Amino acid sequence: MEVVQVLHMKGGVGETSYANNSLLQQKVLSMTKPIREEAMTKLYCSTYPAGIAIADLGCSSGPNTLFVVSELIKLVDSIRQKLGQRSTEYQVFLNDLPGNDFNTIFRSLPSFQNKLKKQLGGGSGPCFFNGVPGSFYGRLFRHNSLHFVHSSYSLHWLSQVPEGLESNKGNIYIANTSPPDVLKAYYEQFQQDFSLFLKCRSEELVEGGRMVLTFLGRRSDDPSSKECCYIWELLAMALNDMVFEGLIKEEKLNSFNIPNYLPSPAELKSEVLKERSFTVDRLEVTEVNWNAYQNEPDLSDAFKDGGYNFAKCIRAVTEPLLASHFGEAIIDEVFRRYRDIVADRMSKEKTEFVNVTISLIKG
Amino acid sequence: MEVVQVLHMKGGVGETSYANNSLLQQKVLSMTKPIREEAMTKLYCSTYPAGIAIADLGCSSGPNTLFVVSELIKLVDSIRQKLGQRSTEYQVFLNDLPGNDFNTIFRSLPSFQNKLKKQLGGGSGPCFFNGVPGSFYGRLFRHNSLHFVHSSYSLHWLSQVPEGLESNKGNIYIANTSPPDVLKAYYEQFQQDFSLFLKCRSEELVEGGRMVLTFLGRRSDDPSSKECCYIWELLAMALNDMVFEGLIKEEKLNSFNIPNYLPSPAELKSEVLKERSFTVDRLEVTEVNWNAYQNEPDLSDAFKDGGYNFAKCIRAVTEPLLASHFGEAIIDEVFRRYRDIVADRMSKEKTEFVNVTISLIKG
Repeated sequence: MEVVQVLHMKGGVGETSYANNSLLQQKVLSMTKPIREEAMTKLYCSTYPAGIAIADLGCSSGPNTLFVVSELIKLVDSIRQKLGQRSTEYQVFLNDLPGNDFNTIFRSLPSFQNKLKKQLGGGSGPCFFNGVPGSFYGRLFRHNSLHFVHSSYSLHWLSQVPEGLESNKGNIYIANTSPPDVLKAYYEQFQQDFSLFLKCRSEELVEGGRMVLTFLGRRSDDPSSKECCYIWELLAMALNDMVFEGLIKEEKLNSFNIPNYLPSPAELKSEVLKERSFTVDRLEVTEVNWNAYQNEPDLSDAFKDGGYNFAKCIRAVTEPLLASHFGEAIIDEVFRRYRDIVADRMSKEKTEFVNVTISLIKG
Repeated sequence: MEVVQVLHMKGGVGETSYANNSLLQQKVLSMTKPIREEAMTKLYCSTYPAGIAIADLGCSSGPNTLFVVSELIKLVDSIRQKLGQRSTEYQVFLNDLPGNDFNTIFRSLPSFQNKLKKQLGGGSGPCFFNGVPGSFYGRLFRHNSLHFVHSSYSLHWLSQVPEGLESNKGNIYIANTSPPDVLKAYYEQFQQDFSLFLKCRSEELVEGGRMVLTFLGRRSDDPSSKECCYIWELLAMALNDMVFEGLIKEEKLNSFNIPNYLPSPAELKSEVLKERSFTVDRLEVTEVNWNAYQNEPDLSDAFKDGGYNFAKCIRAVTEPLLASHFGEAIIDEVFRRYRDIVADRMSKEKTEFVNVTISLIKG
């Protein structure tokens, strides 16, 4: 499986699209906002540059795609106005793999740009938007051309499924039944990918440039701990049930593994120190409930089914990946079962994602 | 009608797509190659820059999209090797309106980039590709950020249908029955658009930066001359026939005008001189037969029907525009009639497009 060719969020704006099932990711963006704001404020106030180039890596397609960059541009512009600085040109690079639905983003841009212009008011500089298709595990931008890099819920995706997972039968990610060589293979792939990521970005960022990266991760030192593996364990349950009923071939399941690694804060820090291009400014851990609608008042009944919503969210993220391995035909059934399993667990226990956010400075 | 929202070549890779019906445009690109090569050679050899940013404006989607930039990159790299210069980073900006099918371009990029890398061989710098959605009748790029701008068969599209064409009844472009105020309205819109284009690009290009622009145009000083109006006159014939038969409402046809202007060399030169940011290096006129397959040996019968091919080419270019005004339902019938009209004319007379190419230097 070529991850670069296959991996992308479900495109379009339909019922099962990522655009319509990414509230959880939006919640995470809201939670990590203070870290981004601090980083961008420090960056802007250190040099008051005439132009700021911002890249969002793994931008996907939907309401989240333009949320962070518009928030950052508005922040800079309000500081600029307060301090009476000259106007700044903003250049925004929206990056994702080539299978991402860039058409939907681009078609929403004219009205977004009009709205942003009105919000910024007179005297603010122009904003230029570019789509950048390609893997962030390789160079994407010219040398010394970026000031700020943001990425949320993207970097836990690996560049490929690690090699040597033959012994991970019945599982689709690290599980507590996985033999040690599986844990090793996953961790080594993560180390290789993330250090390459840091190297590429260090060539592209200007001196003093900043990155704020949020991973789906874990608190524990143990990569097989439930806090990070549970989501895929429950999906493996649905798939194993279907193997048992003859709906999926066993070999097909045994040869499928998710190209994810959910790192701990210590693992992230260790790679940054090893690679040597960046210093760590902040490192924070937060949690988000699987039920993104939890605590939202005044919900219609349709949104109160947490299992349903969470299963749809995971479907929007994994459908292209699963469909390319197992075929389109099983997708509805997998997620019907997954929804039931998830709903049961959510009613009985605390189900949360752990988010690890790291704020880095080049140099 | 919002041209920015509506105008785009027919997307995808289907039978009626632009990607499969743009051989004529490709022929023009081959004919104008010497002018581009001369401009790029002079540009590169004047400073041997460490990075070259190339923009293709109106890139569309199909085999032509990456043709020119890959040709330019290969040219620079071969000169660089011969002269023993250091490697250059290439940044490519592919621009078109937001309705363009960028997804299809982006999905073809990984294999294109691999092929280009092999063709360039070792020692050449990296190539970075960006999609830039938006109208070139406005700023698209940061100040002083481009070295080379190319545009072919795009700039004869106006930013909007000129105002005040109420008297152009039965026509869809300037025709020899158009009253003088129609000619004036079209020419003024062209002047306004092209001078804005020059102003925007002069802000974006570095000093000494270059542009090579090819227009669908005319030799004659008369904007109603047959050499430029004939193509739309024949389409108006098909539409008028359908009005006569009650298939299209007369008011609907009377309110439709193509947002095109096909300039003469003198008109182009005059705008450049007035705007004052650029000097004219070369100005050339060429012709291309409507039958792009003419003189191609060994064609299967399917490609020998020049009227069929030409009608498909014009359909790929105008279908989204026509469909937004007249509705999808009439499209097949319009182009069936257009094909017959065109085939008849092509068999009886010389049917050619006039291409005007202008090579400009900033400063």
